[in-house]
Amino acid sequence: MTLGRLNHVGVATPSIERSIETYRTLLGAVTIGEPFDLPAQGVKICFLDAPNTQIELIEPYDDASPIAGFLRKNPGGGQHHLCFEVPDIQAAIADLKAKGATLLGEPRIGAHGTPIVFMHPRDTGGVLVELMETPQGDH
Amino acid sequence: MTLGRLNHVGVATPSIERSIETYRTLLGAVTIGEPFDLPAQGVKICFLDAPNTQIELIEPYDDASPIAGFLRKNPGGGQHHLCFEVPDIQAAIADLKAKGATLLGEPRIGAHGTPIVFMHPRDTGGVLVELMETPQGDH
Repeated sequence: MTLGRLNHVGVATPSIERSIETYRTLLGAVTIGEPFDLPAQGVKICFLDAPNTQIELIEPYDDASPIAGFLRKNPGGGQHHLCFEVPDIQAAIADLKAKGATLLGEPRIGAHGTPIVFMHPRDTGGVLVELMETPQGDH
Repeated sequence: MTLGRLNHVGVATPSIERSIETYRTLLGAVTIGEPFDLPAQGVKICFLDAPNTQIELIEPYDDASPIAGFLRKNPGGGQHHLCFEVPDIQAAIADLKAKGATLLGEPRIGAHGTPIVFMHPRDTGGVLVELMETPQGDH
């Protein structure tokens, strides 16, 4: 596996609406998607563009969501994960397992419609890493 | 101000050497710079490339370094800051001050040789944001 494109930085927030306002008015984000729900994860999501990558804002609407746990420790919000693209999620998983890495559950379909999987932050220097199969037609 | 390119993601680590090994062997980073010291900050730094941005590994060698404080709270390391490029740091600072944002100290010369400044995470949803003047000749 080769380190791929940083698809997005996941940022947890107690209020996606307020975060959008911050990125728009303070930091000058221009291209901001419509927020949408990911019911399986109990979160609302919004992608906004930097010129070379995206920020994924994540707000939990379900106390059982892992993001809710993150916000209990970081009530103001904060950086949650880094998502790198891989050409083939199954090949990446096989490679990582062969190297003894721990994956958090089975791959599932992520917010971009392609399979994703999370790695255990213990294996990656405390950084929660998401791997995402590159969307077809991208890049 | 318009949200600029994500120059790098800053990642704090208790051991730059071990983190380099993780990014190289587990995540497949190919282009990894030589670690170097930033004595004014009491840290050792190493940049490694993803195709569209960089990871900045940061290891404190001085207990007074702000990174040492971060590691006391996150002993295994973790995401520390996001650095976005701006074309003109003084213009960005004037714009942010006019909007009531708090900057952490005065601009100084950063690891890429151009002026940088950090914003207070209270203003940016808990995310520590670094603004960096785009290096000349880049992009």
